[in-house]
Amino acid sequence: MIRVGIVGGTGYTGVELLRLLAKHPECDLVTITSRSEAGRPVADMFPSLREHVDLVFVEPDPATLKGCDLVFFATPNGIAMRQVPELLDAGVKVIDLAADFRITDQSVWEHWYGMDHACPERLPEAVYGLPEINREAVKQARLVANPGCYPTAVALGFLPLVEQGLIDLDYLVADTKSGVSGAGRKASVPALMGETGESFKAYAIPGHRHQPEIRQTLARAAERDVGLTFVPHLVPMIRGIEATLYARLKSTDRDLQALFENRYRDEPFVDVMPAGSHPETRSVRGINHCRVAVHRPLDGDVVVVTSVIDNLVKGAAGQAVQNMNLMFGLAENTALDQVALSP
Amino acid sequence: MIRVGIVGGTGYTGVELLRLLAKHPECDLVTITSRSEAGRPVADMFPSLREHVDLVFVEPDPATLKGCDLVFFATPNGIAMRQVPELLDAGVKVIDLAADFRITDQSVWEHWYGMDHACPERLPEAVYGLPEINREAVKQARLVANPGCYPTAVALGFLPLVEQGLIDLDYLVADTKSGVSGAGRKASVPALMGETGESFKAYAIPGHRHQPEIRQTLARAAERDVGLTFVPHLVPMIRGIEATLYARLKSTDRDLQALFENRYRDEPFVDVMPAGSHPETRSVRGINHCRVAVHRPLDGDVVVVTSVIDNLVKGAAGQAVQNMNLMFGLAENTALDQVALSP
Amino acid sequence: MIRVGIVGGTGYTGVELLRLLAKHPECDLVTITSRSEAGRPVADMFPSLREHVDLVFVEPDPATLKGCDLVFFATPNGIAMRQVPELLDAGVKVIDLAADFRITDQSVWEHWYGMDHACPERLPEAVYGLPEINREAVKQARLVANPGCYPTAVALGFLPLVEQGLIDLDYLVADTKSGVSGAGRKASVPALMGETGESFKAYAIPGHRHQPEIRQTLARAAERDVGLTFVPHLVPMIRGIEATLYARLKSTDRDLQALFENRYRDEPFVDVMPAGSHPETRSVRGINHCRVAVHRPLDGDVVVVTSVIDNLVKGAAGQAVQNMNLMFGLAENTALDQVALSP
Amino acid sequence: MIRVGIVGGTGYTGVELLRLLAKHPECDLVTITSRSEAGRPVADMFPSLREHVDLVFVEPDPATLKGCDLVFFATPNGIAMRQVPELLDAGVKVIDLAADFRITDQSVWEHWYGMDHACPERLPEAVYGLPEINREAVKQARLVANPGCYPTAVALGFLPLVEQGLIDLDYLVADTKSGVSGAGRKASVPALMGETGESFKAYAIPGHRHQPEIRQTLARAAERDVGLTFVPHLVPMIRGIEATLYARLKSTDRDLQALFENRYRDEPFVDVMPAGSHPETRSVRGINHCRVAVHRPLDGDVVVVTSVIDNLVKGAAGQAVQNMNLMFGLAENTALDQVALSP
Repeated sequence: MIRVGIVGGTGYTGVELLRLLAKHPECDLVTITSRSEAGRPVADMFPSLREHVDLVFVEPDPATLKGCDLVFFATPNGIAMRQVPELLDAGVKVIDLAADFRITDQSVWEHWYGMDHACPERLPEAVYGLPEINREAVKQARLVANPGCYPTAVALGFLPLVEQGLIDLDYLVADTKSGVSGAGRKASVPALMGETGESFKAYAIPGHRHQPEIRQTLARAAERDVGLTFVPHLVPMIRGIEATLYARLKSTDRDLQALFENRYRDEPFVDVMPAGSHPETRSVRGINHCRVAVHRPLDGDVVVVTSVIDNLVKGAAGQAVQNMNLMFGLAENTALDQVALSP
Repeated sequence: MIRVGIVGGTGYTGVELLRLLAKHPECDLVTITSRSEAGRPVADMFPSLREHVDLVFVEPDPATLKGCDLVFFATPNGIAMRQVPELLDAGVKVIDLAADFRITDQSVWEHWYGMDHACPERLPEAVYGLPEINREAVKQARLVANPGCYPTAVALGFLPLVEQGLIDLDYLVADTKSGVSGAGRKASVPALMGETGESFKAYAIPGHRHQPEIRQTLARAAERDVGLTFVPHLVPMIRGIEATLYARLKSTDRDLQALFENRYRDEPFVDVMPAGSHPETRSVRGINHCRVAVHRPLDGDVVVVTSVIDNLVKGAAGQAVQNMNLMFGLAENTALDQVALSP
Repeated sequence: MIRVGIVGGTGYTGVELLRLLAKHPECDLVTITSRSEAGRPVADMFPSLREHVDLVFVEPDPATLKGCDLVFFATPNGIAMRQVPELLDAGVKVIDLAADFRITDQSVWEHWYGMDHACPERLPEAVYGLPEINREAVKQARLVANPGCYPTAVALGFLPLVEQGLIDLDYLVADTKSGVSGAGRKASVPALMGETGESFKAYAIPGHRHQPEIRQTLARAAERDVGLTFVPHLVPMIRGIEATLYARLKSTDRDLQALFENRYRDEPFVDVMPAGSHPETRSVRGINHCRVAVHRPLDGDVVVVTSVIDNLVKGAAGQAVQNMNLMFGLAENTALDQVALSP
Repeated sequence: MIRVGIVGGTGYTGVELLRLLAKHPECDLVTITSRSEAGRPVADMFPSLREHVDLVFVEPDPATLKGCDLVFFATPNGIAMRQVPELLDAGVKVIDLAADFRITDQSVWEHWYGMDHACPERLPEAVYGLPEINREAVKQARLVANPGCYPTAVALGFLPLVEQGLIDLDYLVADTKSGVSGAGRKASVPALMGETGESFKAYAIPGHRHQPEIRQTLARAAERDVGLTFVPHLVPMIRGIEATLYARLKSTDRDLQALFENRYRDEPFVDVMPAGSHPETRSVRGINHCRVAVHRPLDGDVVVVTSVIDNLVKGAAGQAVQNMNLMFGLAENTALDQVALSP
């Protein structure tokens, strides 16, 4: 059994991680910390976990965490980077679900996140935990940076085209849409149902932190820099991300459906839909899959990819469990083989 | 008083038209037809109209319609074109809220709508009822083709850029999102709340009828053909369209905010939001406004416009009333001066 | 023109009041106060008010308020009672949309609201602003206590039965359901869309502040005390209240439909639906109407009434405007004659 | 392995049954029939089942069904009763998720369902599949009538009180609320999102088929007839039922919390929440649990119970699997041990 600790488990990512780990046959959940909720039973806060999780939130305790085999950080940005070095030195493996280790370039990270990085010397060691490009590295990793939700959906949609050099890399467009759980479980007026229900809007058009993260992934795949316009939107639903991706093809004679099917043939969590499909976010509700479809509208020279994930699963907690499975030599889909809840 | 008839008033466009006309001080609602609901009081079907509309649905009667000053067609595509010539010949003005007269090129229309056009000889006479480009022609028109919902939102967002020749016209991207009322009020499985609630998807990526309509509008403004990729999406809400538009700028030294503000300074129903804004669909719920914002993400060479309308108002019934007001010499905002219902 | 001030206009009640007053032909909106937002244009916070309201939030200023003919308090409970005496003494009329003056019995108020009342000597002067029972008193009032949202829906549903003494007053049941805007526009975790969307629950079963308010109204109508079980529920929608009311009939030979129709024949804002109807909250979205239907399930001895209102209109701002109209001798439906926004 | 057939699998109950059975370790899904979709892969219609269900819908074939150990009917009312006798005679066990065998009294059934019963001679054999009252009978049953969704939620809430004779049985009130999936997956205008979204209403107040079903269950528990007022409502969400139940206590000195906890102590799927709780439907989303809480508002003589289930799981497919497990001697929670999907 893997002894697992969770730091910061009171948000949506935390409760989703608990939902998955509660059914993980190789996972022994040792501790879950929360300064604000210390002393409160987890299932009191999240009744959906009644009978499944009998832990109580506790104050963070370094000794307990160091006794774990693996610690998940489900904390706001800027927390993990202050605690990770000590844990790594104690031989504990770490998966950070926040952004502290996602960007390799320290200056880029500090620009976008508005703070100094507390352990830049650890950045080279961090493995970007997108198994579809880094599976072998994840298996060996001690520190995994779990990807962002939008970056997961966008990268998986663009990768086959970028890797094969089929599109104009100077001008990629990613128009992305997320359910409101992506904004987290913090008290705030803009996330009230009275503000977000029955309405739709774009946000962060001038610039969003996931833009450099996606660019980094695509640039590595392309082995050159890419130009990316990234616009997120807020959808009046709770779970789900859809990304519609646009690029100009250098040539129209390639069978794009076959390209995608070949690229993801062996991937357990990427489902290339039949030609002509339009995947819905509900088709991945609660599961770790990304479903993608590739189109050439009006048979022209523009390729359009639509990619859907559950932002809390493949976009956060599920991908973290997938990475854990890889890091500990387990079957990659352990505890991740549910059927989507639809309708 | 303008004597008004409505053909086909049992859909969402019809009830919205009734909501607006019931409060129009210059409008005398004479008849509303429906084969399926003939004999049923309108307010029995739509309780929101109780005390405001005391008409009863009747079988279509040519004599009654010919006694009107104006007839609105709120019918499925392909109906108006069979009845319009007779009405025009009788001196009745017509506004068609369906698509029969939107596309000038008969062959293009027949290709996309899958039927022969019943009165192609009337196509040259039809005025495309987007007042922001055709106000004077609408004032003189006998037959107005009321624009589609997506085309209204997309055209108003792109027009300032296209008219000034500031962008690469070969590759425009319009990523659009609509509430479910856009699919109409017909019994169908895909429009059930069990199918559309709590989910998001793209649809019609291979091609959608609004693509040629938008291209026609932009091509006229540009005085050349344009390349347009148009992808619609379905949002789990009832009303509202948001369009996010992407184009490459030929030059980055133009003040785009000033461009938009100047273009729409005198337009009563286009609101250019302050720089940095992200308009929400709820800000136009129930009103005839289009709100737009223009951005240059990361100060690069891509322009992003976000445009919101209420698909049933500026995207349908409200724009029809605006056109009626113009056709009859009334103040353009008569019966269209409400405040949006928000939240 | 009535010179109007609003104290505390940053919540949903405030923005709704502004929506209605912006179109009120006899209302001159003089000032709107907010400590937290002082200096910010109202239409910057609420884009739906662009072009309709050009006021800027200001710090509360007693002199300005004393220069008004009428001041609305759209503040949290406990604020109005501290400022009202001074305004009344200055000859200003007041409508309090909060609860400070709704309960006549000081000790009951203090028990339920958990604070001392700041001006108990003014309680006898306050008129409970439900025009359907207090129209003449409202016309003469200087201080109106605008009713709560649930109490409005429940009282209007029960009144005909209670006034006629047709039901067992010892055991009334009011099962009520509200959209989330009823919880206000304060940052809080329980009101996030991630918490309230796609879910339904009862709350406050042990006791809710609206129970004594409803009991007071019904007891006055019955001229004796009543036994009332009141349970509110939260609905995953923004606007609307539905109340389903249950009581045992003393006799089954009375024509209940006629009873309701007679009781409300002259009421401009209560619509008794035809026998067999099931009113929907959307049929009153954005308007000041209450629609009610009365049933006797399986022709038994239980009467069931279903009553719907828009919690922000008839349940708050609309009823306040209705009261203002009465207080100033205007037509009762001035600025309140819209058609519901449906769908 | 149990050889399982499903008749009529294209509705929400059908896809939910497939979701659960796909992960059932003892279930071999042999055939699924649909006249309308014969020849279509199940996972083509329901993409959520891709990789989990590789069956193709087929025309109903008696021989294949007779080769099964168990056949589920997920058909409209009136279908199963025509096919069940032949299957039972062939030694096949049957669980009917429709209403054909729920009412023991043939004349009551025929009154409410508006048709003749095709096999009234089989009614005595049918076991009402609510394990919390009929567990041993279900274990022996050849034919199980799976309970309705509302009846499950209401019965589990009332049972402890009724069994102990603590309440006035002449006047029970069940105010119930359901998500829209309860209306099924048939094309219909009233179930469109444009009709049901952002709105709330009661329906079927004059009488609903679930009323006699609930009365039958409670009468058996009480060993006398009961008076029940049952009103259902439609909630703008997809899954979930909440029932708020009202009754007058004969005495207030009983510890109701202890009563409920004792009654359900050994029930694997009924969770009595701590005193003071208000269970939410999302806390059972996707799982077979019923969560209940019991209250005495204002410490009076009225008991209020709130009970939540997922209408598609404990209210339909999950309870059917629970019954299957009992009929075949399996652990009762086989394939039913998921964690609710929340948020």
